[in-house]
Amino acid sequence: MALNSGAQSRVVALAGGVGGAKLADGLYRCLPPGALTVIVNTGDDFRRYGLAISPDLDTVMYTLAGLAHPVNGWGLAGDTQQMLGMLRRYGDDAWFGLGDMDMATHLLRTQALAAGQTLSEITDALSSALGIRARLLPMSDDAVPTMVETLEHGTLAFQEYFVRYRWQPTVRRLYYNGADRARPAPGLLDALAQASAIVICPSNPLLSIEPILQIPGIRAALERRTAPCVAVSPIIAGQAVKGPAAKLMAELSMEVSAAGVAQYYGTLIDGLVIDSADRDVQIAPRKLVTNTFMQTIDDRVRLAGEVLEWMGSWNQ
Amino acid sequence: MALNSGAQSRVVALAGGVGGAKLADGLYRCLPPGALTVIVNTGDDFRRYGLAISPDLDTVMYTLAGLAHPVNGWGLAGDTQQMLGMLRRYGDDAWFGLGDMDMATHLLRTQALAAGQTLSEITDALSSALGIRARLLPMSDDAVPTMVETLEHGTLAFQEYFVRYRWQPTVRRLYYNGADRARPAPGLLDALAQASAIVICPSNPLLSIEPILQIPGIRAALERRTAPCVAVSPIIAGQAVKGPAAKLMAELSMEVSAAGVAQYYGTLIDGLVIDSADRDVQIAPRKLVTNTFMQTIDDRVRLAGEVLEWMGSWNQ
Repeated sequence: MALNSGAQSRVVALAGGVGGAKLADGLYRCLPPGALTVIVNTGDDFRRYGLAISPDLDTVMYTLAGLAHPVNGWGLAGDTQQMLGMLRRYGDDAWFGLGDMDMATHLLRTQALAAGQTLSEITDALSSALGIRARLLPMSDDAVPTMVETLEHGTLAFQEYFVRYRWQPTVRRLYYNGADRARPAPGLLDALAQASAIVICPSNPLLSIEPILQIPGIRAALERRTAPCVAVSPIIAGQAVKGPAAKLMAELSMEVSAAGVAQYYGTLIDGLVIDSADRDVQIAPRKLVTNTFMQTIDDRVRLAGEVLEWMGSWNQ
Repeated sequence: MALNSGAQSRVVALAGGVGGAKLADGLYRCLPPGALTVIVNTGDDFRRYGLAISPDLDTVMYTLAGLAHPVNGWGLAGDTQQMLGMLRRYGDDAWFGLGDMDMATHLLRTQALAAGQTLSEITDALSSALGIRARLLPMSDDAVPTMVETLEHGTLAFQEYFVRYRWQPTVRRLYYNGADRARPAPGLLDALAQASAIVICPSNPLLSIEPILQIPGIRAALERRTAPCVAVSPIIAGQAVKGPAAKLMAELSMEVSAAGVAQYYGTLIDGLVIDSADRDVQIAPRKLVTNTFMQTIDDRVRLAGEVLEWMGSWNQ
């Protein structure tokens, strides 16, 4: 399972939102143009004010285009919330933070979907227009909304749980609505079959990666992979870098550690990249210990380079 | 045909965009709460990016709410165009100027229409939310788009003519698509029947008032009015205060003067308010000569007060 080098390499990354987008950006910057495919979670997708919103696709797209908000990680640098202010004036509770620039993306996507284009097609058109020379693939063109059964508020749509209630409710179960009938986006299974390396980005295993794995055919394609697959742990020293990963793993009785992540992915991965803080954690697959905390763009490039080099060194 | 005074007065204004909105605002400020109904042209309405946009309803609403852009007259004070900038980044030509705050209106309207509400209902909800204590009525809940046959570009949808081509093409004919099958908005004919005074605002006769008159029943209701009806001339000294009124009247072989306006409205009006610059113009109906050029809010209130007082003085 050696990694092809140079222009022939075809790297496939699986990613969710901010953390995943950062490593995908590192890979993008390390690889030649066109070499990277990012399969993106769309379980968070939802409609708000009639607009088709794809939070993770947008985060990955804005990040790879160099337009992401430098502090938030999601949304656009320099964006404003004038529309939200006016919505509140009309009495709307405006709990979901739609930026004004961001609205352009939602509007074009919604219009294209209404005109019969697929999410894959519009994602390709938007990311190309922003100059991105990687392929961004939604996990599916079919809607597979992640549903969150909570102790306090019953079953919530994902964004209600995540944004409206700021992931504070206790989660009892997650499910992925319509996953059984969904199909992988066109080209997705081919991309996995032809990959020279597969990287599961440091995204939330349950909320960002699991929805992708739930699409019929994707888990099986990973199981029969010919390329090496590694994950980068989103858990550092028992904590999530960002978001509810640690809280959620605990609520669903998983071990909140890099070992828990390795266990979760099981035979899907050949190696796990863990932070230096976790150097002594025992895991079944190979491990690469390095600094996995990405603060700067240089951090992303360094980490991505180390991951690619590590995978490339196997079986040589 | 005496004007009822005080709280019993029921004034109906017919209005299009900026000029009409200014006089409607003057009337609104002169009258007790709830006394004013404004029937607004929706011939300019169109869809852009899937959004239902009602330019004249918005201009009247923002103006009466005290939120209109002080220089443009249309749009919102303090609005920005961040979304448009991002649309251009995606390669869209973004020729229609949608403000970011303005987007809230379009989004709520589009969503309400999609949920089965009528344009009247959503207009009422939005204007109430902004604290407006006048009734804003679209001329119809049915779409009646104004179409513009031009010499240079064939037939154009109104906003293409007006915004995209900046009303520069030569107009050969106007028509009002679907007017024959449209119905007046609920309550509109009753408002006219019960009015104590009717005011045709200084809007473009052909592009703002004629679409209203084309809705079956409205012209007839004005013909059999029991209340006095006056118009305020949008033409001063042979020129339009704003927009294409003078150019269009000339292209359609009308006399470009206050007299041309009087002739156009014919028996629909009992009087015409004309600017001091036109004091010597001969017209068939009664005339009130005053300063009709509204620059400040005080100008609006003064002009509206003079118009109401003039009408109230008849037959006393």
